[in-house]
Amino acid sequence: MAKTRDTRARLLEASAQLFRQQGYAGTGLKQITAAGQAPWGSLYHFFPGGKEELGAGAIAHSGQRYLKLFDLVYDRSGNDPAQSIHDLFHLSVDALERSGFADGCPIATVALEAANTSDRLRHACDAVFTSWQQATATFLIQAGAAADRAAQLAAYVLAAFEGAVVLSRTARDTRPLRVTADIVAATIRAELTPGADVTPECR
Amino acid sequence: MAKTRDTRARLLEASAQLFRQQGYAGTGLKQITAAGQAPWGSLYHFFPGGKEELGAGAIAHSGQRYLKLFDLVYDRSGNDPAQSIHDLFHLSVDALERSGFADGCPIATVALEAANTSDRLRHACDAVFTSWQQATATFLIQAGAAADRAAQLAAYVLAAFEGAVVLSRTARDTRPLRVTADIVAATIRAELTPGADVTPECR
Repeated sequence: MAKTRDTRARLLEASAQLFRQQGYAGTGLKQITAAGQAPWGSLYHFFPGGKEELGAGAIAHSGQRYLKLFDLVYDRSGNDPAQSIHDLFHLSVDALERSGFADGCPIATVALEAANTSDRLRHACDAVFTSWQQATATFLIQAGAAADRAAQLAAYVLAAFEGAVVLSRTARDTRPLRVTADIVAATIRAELTPGADVTPECR
Repeated sequence: MAKTRDTRARLLEASAQLFRQQGYAGTGLKQITAAGQAPWGSLYHFFPGGKEELGAGAIAHSGQRYLKLFDLVYDRSGNDPAQSIHDLFHLSVDALERSGFADGCPIATVALEAANTSDRLRHACDAVFTSWQQATATFLIQAGAAADRAAQLAAYVLAAFEGAVVLSRTARDTRPLRVTADIVAATIRAELTPGADVTPECR
């Protein structure tokens, strides 16, 4: 039973890692079973729906793992929520530097590939992005933001984060992430400072 | 001669459109020649380096086209540069709504797929992102930002834009783009307001 769970988990892990590094369409099933040290037959045993089912599973698996990272960063916040937002970006700075710019967001590549080609994968990616935004919105509400505004700020934080990862991976340079982290954290700090009204709606 | 240029242009157009909608690895050469109404042999005639050369050409082609859109928006700025940044995001809101969420950024999907798998494609994507950031930085300098700060803000604007497109396409909902447009435009407005010091560096 433990071994069964291990094989399934290894297939999900291997898929998630390959998808984030080279995309969904560019990853073959043989490459996944090889990287997951799993027998070929195990793939269709655990994922009778084939690559798409495995892909949706890998997205959900990565999403939950990163949700825990978000929560860890937010739990450590102390009295400086803007610093936590800043730290979130720097998780990716560290991951990119450690992996030679290979380990980007485990969701975004598949999300862009699938947005128009696979509703099953798109839904899996959307569920992950939604869970990350909800965690961020909850954190911002605890830090003093109104619920409606927290949801908007959470979308903004995640958008800036995802785009900064795109630019940093493409340039093989963490500066876009560092610069964006600074500006987004400053925006959040200003939003959460009582009496500050520095980010009025733009029309 | 005109026909020759047309066939090459059609191949680049068809590639750019297919890559943005379904990614690079997920697009086959036969699909490209069919969509471009080009004979099979023309592909290797114009692009002897095959798919990778065609891909790099399509990225550069899309990049230049969108650079013109950036410049158009910035030229129309009048006295409200923050509004132009806002308008930039709404170009994508309109494109997504018009295309049923198919037409995202023509660069980002390939950028993420290629970042770790093709240095040629990665360089092509990086050159486009750099050109867009330079156009934005130049615009912000003309609007009163210091050169160093303009470069940082341009990276931030493009990061937020790219990430918001990812979230909007995945959710099939333009709200992430709209919300992010509002907050980024407000940040830029505050930055460009003399005497306002609302976005201090975050450590």
